[in-house]
Amino acid sequence: MPTYHDLMRDLQVKNDSKIVMLVADGLGGLPMAPGGKTELETANTPHLDALAADGVCGLSIPVLPGIAPGSGPGHLGLFGYDPMQFLIGRGALEATGIGLELQAQDVAVRGNFCTLDAAGNISDRRAGRIASDESLLVVEKLQQVKLPGVEVIVRAVKEHRFVVIFRGAGLGGHVRDTDPQQTGVPPLAAVADDAASQRTAELANQFVAQARELIKDEPKANGLTLRGFSAKPAIPSYQELYGLRAAAIAVYPMYKGLASLVGMDIVGQAKDLNEQVAVLEQNWQKYDFFFLHFKYTDAAGEDGDFAAKVKRIEEFDAIIPAIRKLGPSVLIVTGDHSTPAYLKGHSWHPVPTLLHSDCCRPDTCTTFGEDACLRGGLGQFQAQYLMGLAMANAGRLSKFGA
Amino acid sequence: MPTYHDLMRDLQVKNDSKIVMLVADGLGGLPMAPGGKTELETANTPHLDALAADGVCGLSIPVLPGIAPGSGPGHLGLFGYDPMQFLIGRGALEATGIGLELQAQDVAVRGNFCTLDAAGNISDRRAGRIASDESLLVVEKLQQVKLPGVEVIVRAVKEHRFVVIFRGAGLGGHVRDTDPQQTGVPPLAAVADDAASQRTAELANQFVAQARELIKDEPKANGLTLRGFSAKPAIPSYQELYGLRAAAIAVYPMYKGLASLVGMDIVGQAKDLNEQVAVLEQNWQKYDFFFLHFKYTDAAGEDGDFAAKVKRIEEFDAIIPAIRKLGPSVLIVTGDHSTPAYLKGHSWHPVPTLLHSDCCRPDTCTTFGEDACLRGGLGQFQAQYLMGLAMANAGRLSKFGA
Repeated sequence: MPTYHDLMRDLQVKNDSKIVMLVADGLGGLPMAPGGKTELETANTPHLDALAADGVCGLSIPVLPGIAPGSGPGHLGLFGYDPMQFLIGRGALEATGIGLELQAQDVAVRGNFCTLDAAGNISDRRAGRIASDESLLVVEKLQQVKLPGVEVIVRAVKEHRFVVIFRGAGLGGHVRDTDPQQTGVPPLAAVADDAASQRTAELANQFVAQARELIKDEPKANGLTLRGFSAKPAIPSYQELYGLRAAAIAVYPMYKGLASLVGMDIVGQAKDLNEQVAVLEQNWQKYDFFFLHFKYTDAAGEDGDFAAKVKRIEEFDAIIPAIRKLGPSVLIVTGDHSTPAYLKGHSWHPVPTLLHSDCCRPDTCTTFGEDACLRGGLGQFQAQYLMGLAMANAGRLSKFGA
Repeated sequence: MPTYHDLMRDLQVKNDSKIVMLVADGLGGLPMAPGGKTELETANTPHLDALAADGVCGLSIPVLPGIAPGSGPGHLGLFGYDPMQFLIGRGALEATGIGLELQAQDVAVRGNFCTLDAAGNISDRRAGRIASDESLLVVEKLQQVKLPGVEVIVRAVKEHRFVVIFRGAGLGGHVRDTDPQQTGVPPLAAVADDAASQRTAELANQFVAQARELIKDEPKANGLTLRGFSAKPAIPSYQELYGLRAAAIAVYPMYKGLASLVGMDIVGQAKDLNEQVAVLEQNWQKYDFFFLHFKYTDAAGEDGDFAAKVKRIEEFDAIIPAIRKLGPSVLIVTGDHSTPAYLKGHSWHPVPTLLHSDCCRPDTCTTFGEDACLRGGLGQFQAQYLMGLAMANAGRLSKFGA
């Protein structure tokens, strides 16, 4: 039985259309009190409303009912991948999140500095949450580790966190965490869960032994644990699935990383929305598909700051005219999940989504908001089908079957 | 690829929330004439309407479009199990339905008394629908059967029906029915469909041989057939999937049995709705999840009695205030399937469902009925996802992926 991806591969056709997907992170919300409006419904969004009136709306279910996704599964869904099937391990996601581009032979793992007592037991699992600039110096020591036959890449993340990449042939990613998740005991040895990961585990243990020697005199960060060993996830690319030259325009490394995992080019070095729009304009001729990521709607939601999220949505609304001016064949506005200020975190609630094209069968929605989208023509649908809709509306999918 | 159940196992967190699921059996209905209202829409349900106004509504699809479920798949769906994957054999369901608690080594089978003629052919497949009190005496004779190495449990059900449990090691459940489904021929021998069920088939044939000897002089019930051999279904428990201490408050044995199959405790011995509410109140501190089952909406529908079903729905509505007074974190009202009086039986029509919590993103529904639910925020969804939504709304699921 062919999969949806098989259909994308088989039915894709090329044309001159441009598809733009605008992702306001954590866009969906909740009222703060019964009878109230959500953040999006409260915001003054004339441009999004006009787009909703011209286009078709709906609610996107990021994974499955009740499941609140992290950024990884949330974006993979929007990019057209079943987030239950395409899993990104913690190590791969961390590496991606700091802008390291994973290669096919890599195994990435997240490291934590910890404090070891004289007996070698963990006394602080986070090395006193050592400051980032201090941690950077310890990471530099780890960069001296040499292992036989593989390249070792170590990069600081933040505070006590760092990433290690083992790069070389024959490394499986199925190795157990060495973090015992408690104090008063020593770090665990790395243990492979399958034969293909035996060498990875051995290298990880050698890495830890050399590292321990290099940092043994550190006051706080004199030990380390490793979590979330993961190979580069095997994800078919945008080029393969959709035949699209795809560009990602994001400010935060995490979203650049996610986009690069599916084969998008990371373009520009924009630091805010206006710069992102400028990058979009500059690259308009070079690509077929543009993913533009806006982080601050999520950040305000995580902070529980309803008013700030409303304001961020209004900022986001303000870039719509410049984008419409470019004349995209398909313009999508959505989020990777909901982040209601009321819950101060990612949630499972379906995400307001709109799609505008010349053939999108408009519905009766005249505003862009949770309640309006509930009556929209896209209905409630799984995020993983959004790219198929984008392709269809761009005239980039031929008929299935004769 | 992880399943939805894997997510429930992995993401569950514990807190002090209480989840109440009220199931009005066969709740959904149909108008009796074009342009009319359904039973639920006709009923005066001020408390359900208020709950709908505060909560979120939708329509639950018990199995898949067009499929009318029996009580088994109907409830398994509501409990969060794919009813296509988790099948309960007829024997297991019958045993469960009369309150027999199945053990891991059991094979249960439904028996029918029949009338055999002098040549040993079936002349009446139901033994003249022998009265229950008369049948009970014949069942007592069957209880004298002794088989090597296994315990045999025989219990009367109703009229010509009874249940046999073979309890012992190494018994597979894949044995063909001995009921030839016609008269004028003898009962069939039990035949195993796999090697693991070979011994079950042999024991079943020994059981029949001894039973025939014990009841050969019965005027009507001088023979028997066996149908629906089934091992205890392997269903992960509520504790395992959801981390919930779950209680079932039901009047009828069938529903207690279904709840016990998924690991709920059967609490109280309530005989009507008010007693069920009292049992709920008494056990409020002891459990995290409560399943409360109301049978009579279905019974009235099966009778084709529209007015009686309306009245039963109003009785059901009357218990809502007492339940809300307990302050459940999540309160769900639904049915296991529709039983329209117009059809006098279970149907496939999606079932009105409402969910109330402090974070349920209310919709515009202000009444609880089929037509209102069609515009509800839960949309039309498969029943098997209802428990995930309950868990999410109770704050009992952490984020999927980083």
